[in-house]
Amino acid sequence: MTDRFAPRPEDKFSFGLWTVGWQGTDVFGPASRDLLDPVEATYQLAELGAAAVTFHDDDLLPDEATRDATLDRFKKALADTGLVVEMVTTNTFSDPVFKEGAITANNREVRRYALAKVLRNIDLAAELGAQTFVMWGGREGAEHGASKNVPAAMDRFRDALNIATGYVKDKGYDLRFALEPKPNEPRGDILLPTIGHAIALISELDHPEMVGLNPEVGHEEMAGLNFAHGISQALWHDKLFHIDLNGQHGPRFDQDLRFGAGNLRGAFWTVDAMLGAGTSKRYDGYVHFDYKPPRAEAIDGVWESARACMRNYLILREKVQAFRADPEVQAALEAAGVAELEQPTVAAGESLDDVRNATYDLDALRSRSVAMEALDQLAMEHLLGVR
Amino acid sequence: MTDRFAPRPEDKFSFGLWTVGWQGTDVFGPASRDLLDPVEATYQLAELGAAAVTFHDDDLLPDEATRDATLDRFKKALADTGLVVEMVTTNTFSDPVFKEGAITANNREVRRYALAKVLRNIDLAAELGAQTFVMWGGREGAEHGASKNVPAAMDRFRDALNIATGYVKDKGYDLRFALEPKPNEPRGDILLPTIGHAIALISELDHPEMVGLNPEVGHEEMAGLNFAHGISQALWHDKLFHIDLNGQHGPRFDQDLRFGAGNLRGAFWTVDAMLGAGTSKRYDGYVHFDYKPPRAEAIDGVWESARACMRNYLILREKVQAFRADPEVQAALEAAGVAELEQPTVAAGESLDDVRNATYDLDALRSRSVAMEALDQLAMEHLLGVR
Amino acid sequence: MTDRFAPRPEDKFSFGLWTVGWQGTDVFGPASRDLLDPVEATYQLAELGAAAVTFHDDDLLPDEATRDATLDRFKKALADTGLVVEMVTTNTFSDPVFKEGAITANNREVRRYALAKVLRNIDLAAELGAQTFVMWGGREGAEHGASKNVPAAMDRFRDALNIATGYVKDKGYDLRFALEPKPNEPRGDILLPTIGHAIALISELDHPEMVGLNPEVGHEEMAGLNFAHGISQALWHDKLFHIDLNGQHGPRFDQDLRFGAGNLRGAFWTVDAMLGAGTSKRYDGYVHFDYKPPRAEAIDGVWESARACMRNYLILREKVQAFRADPEVQAALEAAGVAELEQPTVAAGESLDDVRNATYDLDALRSRSVAMEALDQLAMEHLLGVR
Amino acid sequence: MTDRFAPRPEDKFSFGLWTVGWQGTDVFGPASRDLLDPVEATYQLAELGAAAVTFHDDDLLPDEATRDATLDRFKKALADTGLVVEMVTTNTFSDPVFKEGAITANNREVRRYALAKVLRNIDLAAELGAQTFVMWGGREGAEHGASKNVPAAMDRFRDALNIATGYVKDKGYDLRFALEPKPNEPRGDILLPTIGHAIALISELDHPEMVGLNPEVGHEEMAGLNFAHGISQALWHDKLFHIDLNGQHGPRFDQDLRFGAGNLRGAFWTVDAMLGAGTSKRYDGYVHFDYKPPRAEAIDGVWESARACMRNYLILREKVQAFRADPEVQAALEAAGVAELEQPTVAAGESLDDVRNATYDLDALRSRSVAMEALDQLAMEHLLGVR
Repeated sequence: MTDRFAPRPEDKFSFGLWTVGWQGTDVFGPASRDLLDPVEATYQLAELGAAAVTFHDDDLLPDEATRDATLDRFKKALADTGLVVEMVTTNTFSDPVFKEGAITANNREVRRYALAKVLRNIDLAAELGAQTFVMWGGREGAEHGASKNVPAAMDRFRDALNIATGYVKDKGYDLRFALEPKPNEPRGDILLPTIGHAIALISELDHPEMVGLNPEVGHEEMAGLNFAHGISQALWHDKLFHIDLNGQHGPRFDQDLRFGAGNLRGAFWTVDAMLGAGTSKRYDGYVHFDYKPPRAEAIDGVWESARACMRNYLILREKVQAFRADPEVQAALEAAGVAELEQPTVAAGESLDDVRNATYDLDALRSRSVAMEALDQLAMEHLLGVR
Repeated sequence: MTDRFAPRPEDKFSFGLWTVGWQGTDVFGPASRDLLDPVEATYQLAELGAAAVTFHDDDLLPDEATRDATLDRFKKALADTGLVVEMVTTNTFSDPVFKEGAITANNREVRRYALAKVLRNIDLAAELGAQTFVMWGGREGAEHGASKNVPAAMDRFRDALNIATGYVKDKGYDLRFALEPKPNEPRGDILLPTIGHAIALISELDHPEMVGLNPEVGHEEMAGLNFAHGISQALWHDKLFHIDLNGQHGPRFDQDLRFGAGNLRGAFWTVDAMLGAGTSKRYDGYVHFDYKPPRAEAIDGVWESARACMRNYLILREKVQAFRADPEVQAALEAAGVAELEQPTVAAGESLDDVRNATYDLDALRSRSVAMEALDQLAMEHLLGVR
Repeated sequence: MTDRFAPRPEDKFSFGLWTVGWQGTDVFGPASRDLLDPVEATYQLAELGAAAVTFHDDDLLPDEATRDATLDRFKKALADTGLVVEMVTTNTFSDPVFKEGAITANNREVRRYALAKVLRNIDLAAELGAQTFVMWGGREGAEHGASKNVPAAMDRFRDALNIATGYVKDKGYDLRFALEPKPNEPRGDILLPTIGHAIALISELDHPEMVGLNPEVGHEEMAGLNFAHGISQALWHDKLFHIDLNGQHGPRFDQDLRFGAGNLRGAFWTVDAMLGAGTSKRYDGYVHFDYKPPRAEAIDGVWESARACMRNYLILREKVQAFRADPEVQAALEAAGVAELEQPTVAAGESLDDVRNATYDLDALRSRSVAMEALDQLAMEHLLGVR
Repeated sequence: MTDRFAPRPEDKFSFGLWTVGWQGTDVFGPASRDLLDPVEATYQLAELGAAAVTFHDDDLLPDEATRDATLDRFKKALADTGLVVEMVTTNTFSDPVFKEGAITANNREVRRYALAKVLRNIDLAAELGAQTFVMWGGREGAEHGASKNVPAAMDRFRDALNIATGYVKDKGYDLRFALEPKPNEPRGDILLPTIGHAIALISELDHPEMVGLNPEVGHEEMAGLNFAHGISQALWHDKLFHIDLNGQHGPRFDQDLRFGAGNLRGAFWTVDAMLGAGTSKRYDGYVHFDYKPPRAEAIDGVWESARACMRNYLILREKVQAFRADPEVQAALEAAGVAELEQPTVAAGESLDDVRNATYDLDALRSRSVAMEALDQLAMEHLLGVR
């Protein structure tokens, strides 16, 4: 008997090498796990059912001396396993050189070094066939009010993206950029704190069509925001270029739990939104996990958590599909008037006077049934597997 | 001796009539204060030093029978006091007809009624000479995952704004729109939850130049976001059309404290950002307070809190100006390299190879002083009045 | 075929009359639903499967003129339906007389009036056979630093509880008290903000054995706390006298969602903790729901949400029982060493020198498997119904 | 001219050696600062005006080989500077051996090793003359529902404290214990998450008089709790044995900002509560700072931030004293009825019938002035230095 929740290549699961590779260092203690060779991790992720891997330059290639040899080994692993590199990103946050920012550091030498690091990594991304280039500005921000000229920082963000997109166009690379918002941690406040702020920036770029988003579940939930709503707005703007799935318990430190842990109902609606939520907007990219196996786990727990990320996605996908296909759900959606929102408020050809002079039965509208608890309870029971 | 913190007309202080008029009804109890006649409130606010008032249609004109008479009395009060109506907004959230949204309600009749209410109020705003028309969609949102088609809701938001801006252009009104974001309360999750999400929407409109933002301190802080950063990004997009000042203690219910209460250091940086924060971007509009006198207060506390909003703004403005003028602060800004961020990372005419092939003294950059604690402590001491 | 999730009397489900009776008034709008006759509600709740009802004095008996007649009708409803009144509580937060507190108001007359209201209601509780008397001090708190002498407020809390317990002892009533903590809303900060603070107070009382807790899911989660941990600590102190089940999405306004909505995994662990979580400490009282049907819902949604509270509890209970009975789970608990925590760290008769002079294989302990992700994934799959 | 904000020995300022010694390692990057010799740090802190230092065993004595020599050097530094060691604490959270807890780890060997480490450190604390022994259980907690038997963990906590207090009594040491609560980070949920939960535990101990609290500003504020209220309740229980001052911006990662940064108004009320807030309960212990200089800062920023912690305390203390001494404040306190809360609700000798049968002028009480905004604005203006 086959396991219907076993990952298959067409599921397009992808993992950051830094996820299973996280050694457990945090503010309160050093590494609890040995270094995991990223090439070995690639083989293991293939074994578990992943279709792709992603990495920060420094995850795979931490030093120049071993760069070429490691790259060769890594390419062999890709060839051996059939995995692809679907996304590459640049570490502009670990090295203390970036302690006060990278692309928006006050110090111009730091900004130039960061830009050089990004450009070099774009070449690598293209060489490896990645189609998405993520930029997470983890140290772009401030703890202190006067220390950062925010409009100037926005200028520098814009310039850097204009340079990067121009470079990719010049080189003819098939590569799009995806910004990853986060509200705080490790900086007190990070610039581009939410999905909305990042889309807003994109509207000011030279090549807005080349830049989209890589939202992360936990990052939006750290601000108490509804992730499914966020990616739905991003889809509406055609800006959901990539996604980072994980888990979080609301406003607190960045937990990076495995997908499904934390806000499970949110995960259900996240998968629903990715699949289109009954609308014409859906996400077709890789299903990418960016999480951290808890520091307490040994290597067995690392692989268990990676396995569970995919498994939970597949379980939730099955449930979402069953939910959307259920006739009783469709009746409940009808009772809640959900499709009615697709009708324009003013029909083509109607005049505003038609709207202004109409008579509205306000008492009936006030007491109307919206029937949303019933709809939500159906979703609950699909999620719980009791329908 | 004159009080240097006494409000003057050129300070452009403005109050919503609903602020001092809030009677104290909340989820847990009924009104604790008598109804305050909005016309009487206008006289009182003038007495206290306000330069303008604002209102929701229903604050001033709750029913048709008394509409004309009240409007006449209100116009007389404006004439008597010299106050202006600088902003008008529409209540699309109190009437249970809007219980499931207004502009984005699933129910199309409700949307049409809401639109009619908005259009009528635009005429009133124009008649009274208001230059800003705020739209806060307090009930636009959801508690349940499947109950709201978010892309369709975005379509309806966009349509409504296109209709409203088109109407204003057709009529030749001198009126701009300002969207007010809020993450949640009274709905479980509200659409356009932050400054960023609202700016993103504007980029998709027919007349984006006519639509900006009316951010509220507490609304961003409910999401744990830095308000000064938020309005600085809005200024960078030329979208800070209006502002709502108040106070909040981070993620919890919407407290609507008087300005200065809650996050006082945030209030200092808010005023600094409004005044330009040493950049070329500043806010020149009305200084508008949107707060609620605590339910426990009697009418004496209502006026005391209104007085204190203005007073705290003036105190903070004096401190911000002293901070920015202080030579020691300027030296600290220099030490922190703040102005260096205004220099483009790549100079005009420079090639990317100049950046990529340069040698960077990474050890020096890693150990460099950023001197931001010292700068921040100077700000602290200006705020505390000990410099 | 019988529905295995149909409520039965032995499930001991109990509802506050104020839950289904909430009319939808909030800070931003008036009632959206008609007044529900509490006696009618009692019949309806019986119909749905509840075993008991609870109320604040003012829910059932809002005025003196109708008090006796309503009480007669209510007693008849109890007799007709077989429902009991298992808990009674006093409304010391709605009437503006309590705008600045009740038991701890600065104003002594208010405190005396509050105490009189509580004592009268104790008599009623005893008359109706309630065994638990809940005290939620929703207005006991402050918005302003100097406005409340906290040690004096603690004295008044203690005195009031000593008076109330003394009164119950004098009268010979079979009644225990249960304090309900909440961190904020409607007051800026409420005294006794968490389960811990309330247990701490109890340790200072004359009759600590007569006073325990009535923790509410959402109240603890508004502070970002783990509710299952909280009630487990309360059980450890033998202080879980009653419980309020509902749903919440972390730190934000008090949402009072139906049980299961909000933090669903938290709800699973809550039921697990109530059932003892494999320990000797379990909750045997009524399963009480304190939630609010969303304001948007009409009366159909009110009953649907009440039905769903019970249904979700029963679904989760079944899953928790299956989880605890699953041999693979038992193996996973073993692998995670969960039972080992029950062994004293120092055995009876051991000397501390045995501990101090022992040799510890630190490297082995550092790299040991804790196997908790695997255990948690089993719980996830029980919850999702895929095992 | 002397600086009135220069620290003096009688101010009793104390610093953890780990504060200025933090090298900047976080989840996202390695150390940004060189190791600071703790003995050198002691001299520097003396120079800045501290009266005492504190440490975790591992801060000062990270390895056996150098233990004795370092201890000698450290004692010489104490003698040279006149500094004392007022508090010692044990690091039971950094070593991966404690990755799943220490005192409450599931693994019994780990618990025994932790206990041995604590006991050895108690001897050192006594040897150095410390009077307070802090226990922060940073890794005592869980990420997973079933992984921790909370009642068993409470048993182990209780046992460990009974053993530790018994040991201190046996040895005749003059040492009290202080528990430090924290809601989360680094564990998903930490046991004893707030001040309240820790006081509750103490009530179950063999020697409750020997155990109190060491609350930290940021830890309570991470749960959205009012720190001044929290320590006031702790003072009421006579349990404020020690204190950790720092700064935080509400629910998010543990920021450990310098004192005054973050919630400045909260800092004012914290100092007010420490000084007694006009009550008979005050804190007389050391004023201890537990913060982290931001990772971006070089060594100059480290010392600047340490200096600023003390300076901000002294500035706030002066303001609090002026606030309490201001006749207008006293009149405002009178108007707000603050002292009236000290009067028992029922006077000695009064019967409950006097309370129950009294007539209350409810309308007058409902509309009474509480005058708390006016009082709070006076506090604001003292804080801002404009009175």
